[in-house]
Amino acid sequence: MKKVYLDHIADTPLHPEALETMLPYLKENFGNPQSLHSSGQQAQQALEEARENVARLIHAQAAEIFFTSSGSESNNFAVKGLALAQKGRGNHIVLSSIEHQSVLHSAKSLEKFGYTVSLVPVDKFGRVTPEDVRKAITPDTVLVSVMLANSEAGTIQPIKEIAEACREQEVLFHTDAVAAVGNIPVDVTELGVDALSLAGNQFYGPKGSAALFLKKGTRILPFIDGGIQEGGRRAGTEDVAAIVGLGKAAEIAMRDWKKRQEKVLPLRDRLIRELPQRVEHVFFTGHPESRLPHHASFCIEFIEGEAMLLNLDMQGISASSGSACTSRALKASHVLLAMGIDHALAQGSLVFSLIKDTTEEDIEYLLEVFPPIIERLRKMSPLYTQYLEEKKK
Amino acid sequence: MKKVYLDHIADTPLHPEALETMLPYLKENFGNPQSLHSSGQQAQQALEEARENVARLIHAQAAEIFFTSSGSESNNFAVKGLALAQKGRGNHIVLSSIEHQSVLHSAKSLEKFGYTVSLVPVDKFGRVTPEDVRKAITPDTVLVSVMLANSEAGTIQPIKEIAEACREQEVLFHTDAVAAVGNIPVDVTELGVDALSLAGNQFYGPKGSAALFLKKGTRILPFIDGGIQEGGRRAGTEDVAAIVGLGKAAEIAMRDWKKRQEKVLPLRDRLIRELPQRVEHVFFTGHPESRLPHHASFCIEFIEGEAMLLNLDMQGISASSGSACTSRALKASHVLLAMGIDHALAQGSLVFSLIKDTTEEDIEYLLEVFPPIIERLRKMSPLYTQYLEEKKK
Repeated sequence: MKKVYLDHIADTPLHPEALETMLPYLKENFGNPQSLHSSGQQAQQALEEARENVARLIHAQAAEIFFTSSGSESNNFAVKGLALAQKGRGNHIVLSSIEHQSVLHSAKSLEKFGYTVSLVPVDKFGRVTPEDVRKAITPDTVLVSVMLANSEAGTIQPIKEIAEACREQEVLFHTDAVAAVGNIPVDVTELGVDALSLAGNQFYGPKGSAALFLKKGTRILPFIDGGIQEGGRRAGTEDVAAIVGLGKAAEIAMRDWKKRQEKVLPLRDRLIRELPQRVEHVFFTGHPESRLPHHASFCIEFIEGEAMLLNLDMQGISASSGSACTSRALKASHVLLAMGIDHALAQGSLVFSLIKDTTEEDIEYLLEVFPPIIERLRKMSPLYTQYLEEKKK
Repeated sequence: MKKVYLDHIADTPLHPEALETMLPYLKENFGNPQSLHSSGQQAQQALEEARENVARLIHAQAAEIFFTSSGSESNNFAVKGLALAQKGRGNHIVLSSIEHQSVLHSAKSLEKFGYTVSLVPVDKFGRVTPEDVRKAITPDTVLVSVMLANSEAGTIQPIKEIAEACREQEVLFHTDAVAAVGNIPVDVTELGVDALSLAGNQFYGPKGSAALFLKKGTRILPFIDGGIQEGGRRAGTEDVAAIVGLGKAAEIAMRDWKKRQEKVLPLRDRLIRELPQRVEHVFFTGHPESRLPHHASFCIEFIEGEAMLLNLDMQGISASSGSACTSRALKASHVLLAMGIDHALAQGSLVFSLIKDTTEEDIEYLLEVFPPIIERLRKMSPLYTQYLEEKKK
């Protein structure tokens, strides 16, 4: 059976070049970077090279990069660490309503310690209005966190303008750029952010590799307490192989992102254009222009996402219905609900996210296979039957 | 040059069989375990198999194992998560004074939220007296954490008795078993612990792989907030390859631990016996019997650990001076100080920790190379000159 992987937002395959650079650290170069002997020093040097590459990818300095184990850990580190480091200054946090669960729930955990959280709405395209952020900031606000790109709707936020609104009011600004970094150009200086989360498995690096960018001079409390790794800000023996893989993936992304984008954009656009032509009652979601180049998202009326995913899977196609971090929870996406999409329609969410190896044939295959799947599922759908009956009247 | 790696406590080489099982998950099987399609389900299944193996290694149930990214994260998760989950009940934590920094600093962080911490002393062998733990517990105590084995002194604690003292007083008990699991038999049921930390890189599994055992029914707050991974208790895309490697390392440890111990024990004993015979002013540290089978630790008078490590390294020998997590901080070990070793002597700490591949020749080589190194360093040591002069008088 043909295999078509269209679930970039859940995970990208590890780049063979990245794996190649990791292998020595899974074999003979197994030293602990904190050890003073030469096998430790070798590992330490590998870490620092990776740090340089990750820094370069987002136009930061190496000393501003702190390695973590996942985008979720980076988000926890940023939200909790930045808020708690300013405990005396204030206790209010501003988030967008479509943040990833790791940002939303980190803030929720802080409520137990006296923090309050305001959620800024998004428009029907999933965009935050910078003016809304400005208005949400109070004298007690110590942190604003708005994601750079949303993995469920694909929408890219006006981060530069939001960062400016924060800077004007002297409030720290963090952006969860996990879905964006490595796929579109991200420049922390140009964006003017104080902190930024990124993860290797979103741009062909290994799982277990991620980082937090923290602007020089920004105070943060460690999240994982312990040893002196990462400048005393993140304890735990460094996962050298994963970090080396992340560094290589960053290097490759700098080299290849444009080529990848040029390849993936027309395929993505074809999908956005043709899917609603081939199947009735298909609604495109997210922003039409300001969106991730590999991202096509829809809501399919009268059918639940899960049923579509399983039927697509039977045809060899991997896709997703919202965030992988909650997909097994099978709840309607808080992102789509925040965009004003009604609950029933949001249940029919479907995201096709292309990878660098996606071909014209893959898209063609999806476009062929999809209509009969939907037809079959709709035949079994009480909602659809009801719709047809009401239409007759 | 001959290479002799005697730094097990900093890191063990990844077992080739473990790497072999990891590779498919770094190549074609790259799915996100949370994805509903078959590539995700394959990854999910691999996770669950690894969970079974890790559980079996410590005689736990699979549902009691939660994967993390390092021993330090497991310790943070346990100390913070268990204490915060009982916030209404009390605010007092009891630790031994020789805990790893990730336990000590986690508790220190909790002090900012109104918790108080008591440190229980150790004897000159680095042993905690269960009666001291019993006495340290107050009606406000919500958590006791005492490590199973100390990586700097090698000493194994009377965990079963300490756990019993906690259970009698209905206080949760966590043990940091990072240095122990996979190297000596550990049975959570027999020990009677509520929570236990372990890490793959201490028994030939990959870096970035670790777990927290949490006894069924024990309430804990998530440490990394976010998605629904690990039963909602630890968010972040699972590092499938690392977890699979951990599972394999656990399986191998169950098969090989006895063989490894039988091989390493006589070599370790020879080192402990002969090193002080070949060099003057060498003091064995830690418990002579109740200790890790691969662990030989000493304090060498009149010389600093760092100088010895670098000189040993020049002869191809990797060793350590205290914990890798703080070795670059070059402070006298809090563990040795707590054992009553004076500050100057503690600076001369040296740990040789054998791995499964250590040979008789390795030990022979070390015993040959070591005396001239020490002689040379002592010639340059003002402390030694002073000692000789005082001796003359």
